[in-house]
Amino acid sequence: MTNKEGILLILSGPSGAGKGTICKSLLKETDIQYSISATTRKPRPGEKDGREYFFITKEEFEKKIQEDAFLEWAQVYDNYYGTPKKFVEEVLVSGKDCILEIDPQGAQKVKGKKPDAVYVFIAPPSMQELKNRITNRGTENTLEINKRLNCAKEEMLSMHNYDYVVINDKVETAVKKIQAILIAEKCRIQRNKLYCI
Amino acid sequence: MTNKEGILLILSGPSGAGKGTICKSLLKETDIQYSISATTRKPRPGEKDGREYFFITKEEFEKKIQEDAFLEWAQVYDNYYGTPKKFVEEVLVSGKDCILEIDPQGAQKVKGKKPDAVYVFIAPPSMQELKNRITNRGTENTLEINKRLNCAKEEMLSMHNYDYVVINDKVETAVKKIQAILIAEKCRIQRNKLYCI
Repeated sequence: MTNKEGILLILSGPSGAGKGTICKSLLKETDIQYSISATTRKPRPGEKDGREYFFITKEEFEKKIQEDAFLEWAQVYDNYYGTPKKFVEEVLVSGKDCILEIDPQGAQKVKGKKPDAVYVFIAPPSMQELKNRITNRGTENTLEINKRLNCAKEEMLSMHNYDYVVINDKVETAVKKIQAILIAEKCRIQRNKLYCI
Repeated sequence: MTNKEGILLILSGPSGAGKGTICKSLLKETDIQYSISATTRKPRPGEKDGREYFFITKEEFEKKIQEDAFLEWAQVYDNYYGTPKKFVEEVLVSGKDCILEIDPQGAQKVKGKKPDAVYVFIAPPSMQELKNRITNRGTENTLEINKRLNCAKEEMLSMHNYDYVVINDKVETAVKKIQAILIAEKCRIQRNKLYCI
């Protein structure tokens, strides 16, 4: 008897490591559901409720916090963002895998509630390369760049809390590795029960 | 800094599950070294020392037992068979993965000496299918078949000592799963050290 429940894949890592790009490519090439977040911010043109986000009011969000309805949530400036527990659980029970792309702080919160999820840390090929990537975005001043770089360095230290680390030197290779991790995790003994002998 | 040492892959399971066929196919399609056993039996026509086996004398074998030179060894009728520790370790240190195809009793012995190896249990699709496979070999009488079947049932119970179980309903699929396990294991956090930040 095999465990038919889907796998919750947590994709995290410092900003600049490329987890967003990897996540997009993975969604295109793999039969996996994207975990849709809830937010109180207004939808931007082209965004659709239940596709990019679940758009809800501040009151609804705060009620859900009280009901422990989020795997994690955070306040960014004036808006709330959170991962609805029910959505993720329905995907997993249906037998489909679910991917949650999230920053390391968020991943740490999820771990408290979902210790059996698969935690993958996306790492840059080197700290120098991370620095290049953060610097080359070109949209921030030196102070902002240094702040982001220090934050990324701290986030790198959380790597040891993860099950796997995938070094993103090439998106295509990184995606293949994550696909292999999903296949391997489905073979893990904990997910496979003994036959009735 | 990544750990560049190869992975020791232990492929085991009850007789009739098809681990031999899977191992052959894996060796053909993957860059992995077959762990060559030592034996005291005489080479058969076409067999070459250091290819199928290391052919050694009974005295040499017993000396090596004293020296703790085997990951595991067993006596089958009048002959010894064993896995030379040195050969396996040299392969791993060179950075290449090494595959050891072995019965569950042998795998259990190896686990005492190599707890960090990757243990994969090859399981038949069902006990009925295993019975069919053992029966259809056609070379044994009913008594022998029942003996083998009881042995296989007992071996199935050792499954929970393994890291992974791969159900062999199709050799090609099973081989792909083992290849994925190797890729995933190389990404495991234990095998990847932190960068110097």
